[in-house]
This record gives sequence, C-alpha cells and structure tokens, in this order.
Amino acid sequence: MSRGRTSALVVREALLRAARELLDERGPAGLAIRDIAARAGVAPMGVYNRFGSKDGILNALLEEGFAELAAAVTVRPDVADPLGAITTGMGNYRAFALANPAMYRLMFDLPIAGFEPSPEVRMMALAAFERLIDAVQVGIATGHLRPGDPEEIAQRVWAGCHGATSLELRGIAFITDYDTHYAALVRTLLRGLATHPDSESE
Amino acid sequence: MSRGRTSALVVREALLRAARELLDERGPAGLAIRDIAARAGVAPMGVYNRFGSKDGILNALLEEGFAELAAAVTVRPDVADPLGAITTGMGNYRAFALANPAMYRLMFDLPIAGFEPSPEVRMMALAAFERLIDAVQVGIATGHLRPGDPEEIAQRVWAGCHGATSLELRGIAFITDYDTHYAALVRTLLRGLATHPDSESE
Repeated sequence: MSRGRTSALVVREALLRAARELLDERGPAGLAIRDIAARAGVAPMGVYNRFGSKDGILNALLEEGFAELAAAVTVRPDVADPLGAITTGMGNYRAFALANPAMYRLMFDLPIAGFEPSPEVRMMALAAFERLIDAVQVGIATGHLRPGDPEEIAQRVWAGCHGATSLELRGIAFITDYDTHYAALVRTLLRGLATHPDSESE
Repeated sequence: MSRGRTSALVVREALLRAARELLDERGPAGLAIRDIAARAGVAPMGVYNRFGSKDGILNALLEEGFAELAAAVTVRPDVADPLGAITTGMGNYRAFALANPAMYRLMFDLPIAGFEPSPEVRMMALAAFERLIDAVQVGIATGHLRPGDPEEIAQRVWAGCHGATSLELRGIAFITDYDTHYAALVRTLLRGLATHPDSESE
C-alpha cells in the first residue's frame, strides 16, 4: 500500500472518529461538517474529498452503528432454550441503545431532514435484524414458538423492544423501574408467541 | 365578556390554528414564530403576547394533541370482552398517529432541542394513558388478564404499539403489510398478558 493511500485512510478514520464523538456529545443535530473537520484537524474540503457530502459521513456513521448493533445482538443459538437466547439478544439491544443514545436516534428516528440512508446502510440494518429472524426460526423449528412468518414475528419483537427503548431514552414513560419493565415486556411478547405459554414464562 | 377579551381569544385561536397547520405541513422543525404569526395575520409580538414564548405555543399544540388522542382511544368498557376493547383502543391509537404524523412526533419524540413539555401537558398525556390503564384494570377484574400492576402492564401495551407505529411512520421496518402486522402485534401482547392465552386469540 502506498504511503499516500495509507494517509488517506488515516484521515478518513480521523474524520469518522471526530463525527462519532460529536454525535455522542451533541446528538444528530450537532453534526456540522466544519466542526467534524476542525476536530479531526482537517480542512472542511477534506470531508468532501473523503465522504463526498454530509450524507456520505452520515452513512459511514450508520454503517458503524449497525455493525456494532449486529455484534451486540449476536447470541449463540440455543436449541435447548431459544427463547432465552432471544431474551439475551433483546437485552443486549436495549443496552446498546442506552450506551449510544445519539447513534440509536440517528439509526431509528431518521432525525435529519432530507437524509435517506444508502442501500449499503439498509443492507447492514437488515443484517442486524437477521440475527433476530434466525433466533425466531430456531424457536419455531424446535417447537417453542408457534409457526408463522419468521420475519414478521421478529418484527413484532423488535417493534416492542424499540418502543420501550425509545420511551425510556426520552423519559416520557409513566413507570420508574425500566429494567423490570423491559424484562416484563420481552417476557410478555415471548409468552404471546409461545406454543405453550405457561411453560415458557413466570 | 368584553369585546377586547373576545378578540384576544379569537387571535389566540387563529395563532393556534396557524401553528397546527404549519406543524402538519412542515413537521415540528417548521414551527417558526414569524411563520405562525404571518399565517394568522398577526405581528410576531402577538405570539409572545398570547403564548409568552415559543414553548407556550408548543405546549398549547401538545394540549390539543393529547386531548385529541384521549378522545380517539376512549372506548366504552366492555366487561364481556375487555381485550376486544383494548384492541379497538390501540387500533384507534395507530389511526391517530397515521392521520397526525407530525403531531405524533411532537408528542412522543421530543424533537425540539431544549423544549420540555409543561406540567399541564404531562397531566393531559397521563389522562390519555389512563384510558388504557382503565381498560387493563377491567381485564384484570374480569379475570381475562393475569393480575399485576395495571400501570406497568398498560405501559407494556403502549410501548409495543408506540414502537410499531414509530417504525411505520418512518418506513424503516422490514415488512410491507402494516395493517396485518399491527393487529398481530396487539394480539401477541394480549395473548402474552392473558390468563388463558389460547382462548383469547386465534
């Protein structure tokens, strides 16, 4: 690899790190090109050279976020206890959101007017979601979950966990013990999907 | 009522109507004081005179939104079929969100930096939520739902429906038939909460 190419990659990494820091500190609205460039010690034109546009750096951040989320929710399949594996994965999902609230908002609230994630970002989001689909498929195959479309069933579980997580991040719920509430919601969803509800929970 | 007072109320209503129109047309980010005043045919100072600040008009909009939501989700209690009443109420909740996407975002995403809803708005949000708590209490009292804290159980149902609604509004889900999916999610939540799951659904 030539020295010039190495240097270009180093600059790209520095810009992406600066953008992630600003996202974490200020939220999605704090992502101004000139601030990203200043923090990385690069001229603003350097951002355009490496990422093409502000959308380019947003997509690079989202690729990072979905890669981290996919890693967080990847749980070893457990044919003996597939619902336990889903419970662990959805707990990891919430933990990722609480540790990365601004990234979570960027990923799932589309808070930046006019910005649409790239096809690559959508593929990475699907790859993270497929971890949950896989776990649902194991649950159906082993008879723990009732038969159905694994993708639509996984979407139900995700919707529930996303709703609870979003309300917790905004603090507009009417409960106080979010740990207990989230665990109860996941249990309710899995009991609702289970083949033999009363053997699957509580 | 004096003529001056009547006129002040008329101006207040005109400003609120203009703000609601701008919210619906442009989303929460489109609520600029000068645009609200121009649409109502009032000087910008008129907004400050009637609402005190931009926060005042945001709170007035939110009071309107939560009053509409409470009316939409109010379903006649049905001791013979309390889970049917919850299903109807949560269907009305989604219909309200789809008909008022910008208002829904203002109510539940807190999209405006630095703005916190007033205590009055929080009380009206709680009043809307209490419709669901009431329905859950009927379900527990009649033995259709398993015993538990009605507020926390209602929060589980709300979280699930909020999650599905938010993802639908943003179009970032991986399913296409949102009507069927939402109905299936509500059924899953109620089956998960039911005393006798298999008699309560499908």
